[in-house]
Amino acid sequence: MPAVDFRAEDFLGRIQAVVGERYVVTDASEIDHFATDHRGRYHGTALAIVRPGSTAEVSGVVKLCAEHGVAVTPQGGNTGLCGGATPLTNRPSILMRLDRLNRVREVSPIDDTITVEAGCVLADIQAAAAGVDRLFPLSLGAEGSCQIGGNISTNAGGIAVLRYGAMRSLVLGLEVVLADGSVFNGLRRLRKDNAGYDLKQLFIGAEGTLGIVTAAALKLSPAIKSRTVAMVQMASVEDALTLFERTRKTFGERISSFEIIGSSYMDFVLKYVANTSMPFEQKADWYVLIEAGEANTGADLAGAMEELLGPALEGGLVSDAIIAGSLAQEEALWRLRHGVTGEFKVAGKTMSHDTSVPVSCQPEFTQAVEKGVLEAYPDANVMMVGHIGDGNIHVVVLFPHERFADAAAFDAAADEIDAIIDDIAIGLGGSITAEHGVGTSYRKRMARTKDPFELALMRRVKAALDPDGLMNPEKIFLPTAH
Amino acid sequence: MPAVDFRAEDFLGRIQAVVGERYVVTDASEIDHFATDHRGRYHGTALAIVRPGSTAEVSGVVKLCAEHGVAVTPQGGNTGLCGGATPLTNRPSILMRLDRLNRVREVSPIDDTITVEAGCVLADIQAAAAGVDRLFPLSLGAEGSCQIGGNISTNAGGIAVLRYGAMRSLVLGLEVVLADGSVFNGLRRLRKDNAGYDLKQLFIGAEGTLGIVTAAALKLSPAIKSRTVAMVQMASVEDALTLFERTRKTFGERISSFEIIGSSYMDFVLKYVANTSMPFEQKADWYVLIEAGEANTGADLAGAMEELLGPALEGGLVSDAIIAGSLAQEEALWRLRHGVTGEFKVAGKTMSHDTSVPVSCQPEFTQAVEKGVLEAYPDANVMMVGHIGDGNIHVVVLFPHERFADAAAFDAAADEIDAIIDDIAIGLGGSITAEHGVGTSYRKRMARTKDPFELALMRRVKAALDPDGLMNPEKIFLPTAH
Repeated sequence: MPAVDFRAEDFLGRIQAVVGERYVVTDASEIDHFATDHRGRYHGTALAIVRPGSTAEVSGVVKLCAEHGVAVTPQGGNTGLCGGATPLTNRPSILMRLDRLNRVREVSPIDDTITVEAGCVLADIQAAAAGVDRLFPLSLGAEGSCQIGGNISTNAGGIAVLRYGAMRSLVLGLEVVLADGSVFNGLRRLRKDNAGYDLKQLFIGAEGTLGIVTAAALKLSPAIKSRTVAMVQMASVEDALTLFERTRKTFGERISSFEIIGSSYMDFVLKYVANTSMPFEQKADWYVLIEAGEANTGADLAGAMEELLGPALEGGLVSDAIIAGSLAQEEALWRLRHGVTGEFKVAGKTMSHDTSVPVSCQPEFTQAVEKGVLEAYPDANVMMVGHIGDGNIHVVVLFPHERFADAAAFDAAADEIDAIIDDIAIGLGGSITAEHGVGTSYRKRMARTKDPFELALMRRVKAALDPDGLMNPEKIFLPTAH
Repeated sequence: MPAVDFRAEDFLGRIQAVVGERYVVTDASEIDHFATDHRGRYHGTALAIVRPGSTAEVSGVVKLCAEHGVAVTPQGGNTGLCGGATPLTNRPSILMRLDRLNRVREVSPIDDTITVEAGCVLADIQAAAAGVDRLFPLSLGAEGSCQIGGNISTNAGGIAVLRYGAMRSLVLGLEVVLADGSVFNGLRRLRKDNAGYDLKQLFIGAEGTLGIVTAAALKLSPAIKSRTVAMVQMASVEDALTLFERTRKTFGERISSFEIIGSSYMDFVLKYVANTSMPFEQKADWYVLIEAGEANTGADLAGAMEELLGPALEGGLVSDAIIAGSLAQEEALWRLRHGVTGEFKVAGKTMSHDTSVPVSCQPEFTQAVEKGVLEAYPDANVMMVGHIGDGNIHVVVLFPHERFADAAAFDAAADEIDAIIDDIAIGLGGSITAEHGVGTSYRKRMARTKDPFELALMRRVKAALDPDGLMNPEKIFLPTAH
């Protein structure tokens, strides 16, 4: 809680002394811009936008915030899908943008490591890795503008998790500014380190609620020199899993993506997304996109793909298949899969989900979701797309713009559909948020579906690291009465 | 602290009512046996050995311990190298053996998961995975007797970390009994789950100080169908790293091991370890053992290995090379590398280290260690062996049995040599315990070398989860005055 004698102007003056006057922005329209989330669903506010230029400055700002009882919402590229980087508290707060911490501190190809500051844009890190003939494998729709600090704080997923794991698997070390402004310097570049608790794990996926990630030492992988991309069509999710099993036998860990697209999602993409066309003569219920790659230039991966898909075609497991013969064809196939948030807004009102279940439960999950949602809303367009190799299906339920009388009616329907999908996921041992995190959007649903003991344990961790609740307040957990 | 009216017999009677009389062992010689660590360096004691048969029984026992103020030291196969599973506290305590929790609860090849109880022996889990044509990749010297709960609690490493990561990377979900006896049920089998803090990470590598792992959902990998094993000899650690770089280009993620053996370690093995013989005509300063494997039966990995090593031989990077032509030859090469703890005891007095540094720093590390130790102790036999692909070198310093007048003189020398090696490691951004953990042995060295702020943060986590300090007391941290 703020001190009784809190005066914003005194406080901001002290902040200016730390970061410089020009990096404390109090212009209302600029605050409004950055205090609105990527999807435009949340509109927050803050005393100021503060843009520190170094870890020491982050520390200095957070120390002042702790002293004055001011909350801090850290923000990277503001591309998150759950309102996790939007300042939505009624307490005095600042919005801390990390974009000026954008140095690549070190790249070491021998160590397969890169050490970067939190504000580095993901695509720039990918490029820095490629510059030393390495791969930084995290890849997702927003890679051109999202920042690595946000990727770490949300344990970002994307299209190569199957092979390389999510963000957590790529972090070797972290530097973090804690709630009292002290700096945890865990920026080690070690493959193995069992010297006590692995504290960095606490901050990965914590969405800035336990501290502010300022820098990270990340793992690189061998650059991919040979690649093959294919798309197939098939009748069922079961068949997709059978093909997944065969694909693992053929490619081992070299499968980097195994993605599924349902027919209504494919129809949507073909209708709304520019530069897309149907690669097959016939339609099918499901499409699978497969990518495999390896470090060795000599590998005949396309040949291996043919050996995989030939028998699958002959045996009727897949009804048609296309192996990309050029980079342009690879890109054309990937365009059918990639994120289409903007197009959803044009097409209607959507409710998006990010569910995971054990890989083998996906046939049951997809059937139960379609049945459950259509029983409640027969006019819903239930689209599915996702990372079937990871057990992570995104269900997108689309309605015409005019379907609901007002926002309240839409929200009520969304709550109902959320509950249908969440209950199916939880019943199968799944998660209601596989890769997007909790932020603001998923708090109520998490509170409803999570074991209360597990939630209480999370709050205990939060209290231990941020006793005054100043770090990204009111995210992940619903506010409790004080 | 125990209640003032604590009576061991009343307490143990209540424990018997939970687990059954026969599973509460108070026989002094049996307690003595299990309260002595694997290396025979620590001799502890306990009120009793308690062997619960289920998670509910673990919970019941821990609840009673919390009520009576009795500490709990959990123990798996008792194969740890740091005295982490030895009850060494002066407080009333029990030694909890998890060996009766030894069920494989579920194996799912489609999901690539296996769900096991904490007392399952590692080799049995490997066998269960092989039974469904999968690989559970954790592999280490003690695999025939160590238990998975211990592997998880120590974040075990071993010989395949390069490819598959350490234990932490293999854990999808955990079930843990906390200090008050409550059960954290995080036994999910999901590849992706960002629903709040990833609490299981807290317990991996915490050595039982935050709770007792009772079960785990683990990741499986494709079974290895083609394999190649080679050994080469070379003049320097730099050359080994050059070969490592080329090996990564050739095999990508298919390298499962890249291990180094120094000449004096090789001499030691050839002299003391049964069934070993020198595979080369000449001696060399360093030997590297390489293993690559893949899921595809058709792969010509031996051919790829020849293409890798041929030019290396011609160019003089390696002075000799042997590619195993049979399983027997593969095993013979691996025998030169595997753990030799027993033989050390026969040969003399040893001081063993488990250091990691960034991969590129290993030439500097090995040279500085040899120089530093030999300057202080010119008669020392400084042997080196380790996982060079992970930056993890084990330095073993050997002296003749009669070298030190008494245990105190040995301990003083060990402290001095520890400090020499630790300072070099820390100076290079390394860790003084890469894969063995802290337990009892490394506490003093960790307290000396670790950032006090980081240590304090670890204690804060400990206090949040185990406020009364009943979980494996006096491990990881040196006791503080109360």
